[in-house]
Amino acid sequence: MPQDEFVVTPWEVSGRVDYDKLIERFGTERVDEKLLKRMEKYGPLHPMLKRGIFYSHRDMHWILDEYEKGNKFFLYTGRGPSGDVHLGHLLPWILTKYFQDIFGVHLYFQITDDEKFLFKEDLTLRETERLSYENMYDIMAVGLNPELTHFIVDTKCIRMMYPIALEVAKRITFSTVKATFGFDESFNIGMIFYTSMQSVPCFLPSVLAGVNIPCLIPCGIDQDPHFRLTRDIASKLGFFKPALLHNKLLPALTGEEKMSSSSPYSAIYMRDEDPIVKKKIMNAFTGGRVSVEEQRRFGGNPDICSVFAYYTYMFEYDDRKLSEIREGCKSGSLLCGECKLNLYKKVKSFMDEHRKRRESAKGIVEDLILRD
Amino acid sequence: MPQDEFVVTPWEVSGRVDYDKLIERFGTERVDEKLLKRMEKYGPLHPMLKRGIFYSHRDMHWILDEYEKGNKFFLYTGRGPSGDVHLGHLLPWILTKYFQDIFGVHLYFQITDDEKFLFKEDLTLRETERLSYENMYDIMAVGLNPELTHFIVDTKCIRMMYPIALEVAKRITFSTVKATFGFDESFNIGMIFYTSMQSVPCFLPSVLAGVNIPCLIPCGIDQDPHFRLTRDIASKLGFFKPALLHNKLLPALTGEEKMSSSSPYSAIYMRDEDPIVKKKIMNAFTGGRVSVEEQRRFGGNPDICSVFAYYTYMFEYDDRKLSEIREGCKSGSLLCGECKLNLYKKVKSFMDEHRKRRESAKGIVEDLILRD
Repeated sequence: MPQDEFVVTPWEVSGRVDYDKLIERFGTERVDEKLLKRMEKYGPLHPMLKRGIFYSHRDMHWILDEYEKGNKFFLYTGRGPSGDVHLGHLLPWILTKYFQDIFGVHLYFQITDDEKFLFKEDLTLRETERLSYENMYDIMAVGLNPELTHFIVDTKCIRMMYPIALEVAKRITFSTVKATFGFDESFNIGMIFYTSMQSVPCFLPSVLAGVNIPCLIPCGIDQDPHFRLTRDIASKLGFFKPALLHNKLLPALTGEEKMSSSSPYSAIYMRDEDPIVKKKIMNAFTGGRVSVEEQRRFGGNPDICSVFAYYTYMFEYDDRKLSEIREGCKSGSLLCGECKLNLYKKVKSFMDEHRKRRESAKGIVEDLILRD
Repeated sequence: MPQDEFVVTPWEVSGRVDYDKLIERFGTERVDEKLLKRMEKYGPLHPMLKRGIFYSHRDMHWILDEYEKGNKFFLYTGRGPSGDVHLGHLLPWILTKYFQDIFGVHLYFQITDDEKFLFKEDLTLRETERLSYENMYDIMAVGLNPELTHFIVDTKCIRMMYPIALEVAKRITFSTVKATFGFDESFNIGMIFYTSMQSVPCFLPSVLAGVNIPCLIPCGIDQDPHFRLTRDIASKLGFFKPALLHNKLLPALTGEEKMSSSSPYSAIYMRDEDPIVKKKIMNAFTGGRVSVEEQRRFGGNPDICSVFAYYTYMFEYDDRKLSEIREGCKSGSLLCGECKLNLYKKVKSFMDEHRKRRESAKGIVEDLILRD
């Protein structure tokens, strides 16, 4: 693959992702000043919006138009329970919580246990069920409002979902799936069918309510291909097209393009113990110089630094303080060791809070699963 | 397609079917004297067995071996609710009833409403639901024992079925489906997934019982491709391979190769009124001569006659009487008009009984659908 090429699908991110090119390739719109100004009316802008981490969208203006007409949207996002949750997974969930709080809207959170079973050779349905619960605890731990949160666990909610999935599946051919996801004939027939299941939550709340409700999906940009298909057929089924708001993926601590479970030091998992978290951060790839002396003299480069990215994405939402870190780095007054240790303290306190909220989620998750 | 070529899949029967060649092509075994002798031990042989209408099988000896060891099998057959039931559909159901009576075993009857919705462009889920009930009344009207009959309606029983369908789907690729059914890339992703759903009833009773139970499927030979796939993966999933007993398809009254809803005179539908039934029989394609005179002189040919086929398959189970009809035809003493009228009387009395039993089925069908 040439240097400037890269692949982004729900199951593969490879090459160096050019997020600007992705907007062209997927045909989405940029989150611009005009949209941000408009959103500011509803509450203080979330730093991930202001900082361009949620940088691309489809139909956000329409969602706000409808909202202003009194036609509230619902939120939809999801998680494939294939293993432990890491910090990067939390980005859309945190923004989803922000929207839930600001707009007071319902959230339908899909747990795609069928997907992960079908796509991971060694995964059993017994294991995906266990992981589903483990992951739902992490999801609730971001502080979602249980009064407004409904889990759609595919294998548990299939009776409600299947008729809608059939309506979707009837309108998508193998050719389309092949072109959209890069599948070939060696893919199993469950994988091929699966995208219909990811469409269902876009429409299910409308079916349950008996009236069309706009849908807003905050998600990683890698999930967009599913919803392009959904949008193509929504009106054929008599529903609104879902709107989307896409985030860039959290950079890997190791400087690689993507966090991955095959490279455990690339990501911080919510189940990591403090010493592991510390070790991962202290070993992170930075924009620092080869020696303390050089760093003091020439300064570092925050723009390529994974530690600075962590501050930007999640751990320093005070703009003034973030700017101090940036300037300290560039001037050489802030050394990597100190900067990492500061980050570790922030991450540790975040993790402590998360663990506490995760424990209290255990008693309530079962009741949040959507029932027939 | 050359004269000697023909296609038989669950969705297409075309060309002149050579049932002997089909045994070779599908790799099944012939129902031979040895098997018939063995089956006679359990009760009088059903005429459809004796007459070679159920002519092909897979693993029938194994089913009987297991039965003799005290390991009872269950029966599984099915119906795609795409329209009205005709007499030809009844063949496997009648044999299934015979087995249910002789062996006292449970029957799981699948109603594949999802399949028909996916394969028929204009069919809605609302309509397949209506047809499912209409068809279940016809199914019970063959005299199945309600104490031993369980309907599996795909969209209604999906919560139990989906985990098993996923296990199946994970082990079948698009290549395999393409080779087995002749699908191409223009097929919708629901069609591609569907065969996993038809596998499920082979395993569901074992899952529910927590112990492996042998499965016997009486069905039209056109359904065999589904179960070849099922048999290929059964042991990977830890189940027995299902056994099968295949029937030839009832010939069309019009002399065409296949009964079809696009040619309404080709088949007698269970909802046809008596005058329509009579008209269809009186217009049927026969082995008669062009004039009464010629018929008296040279006799007719029962071997190509659709009326004689109806006697053989369903309406004259007394071998002596069937032989009288054959000889009367060949000698020219029995003319087509009389022979057709006699058939009509038999069909009418069969239909009268069917209509009565169909009415009484209406109150009980709902309770026979398998529930979580």
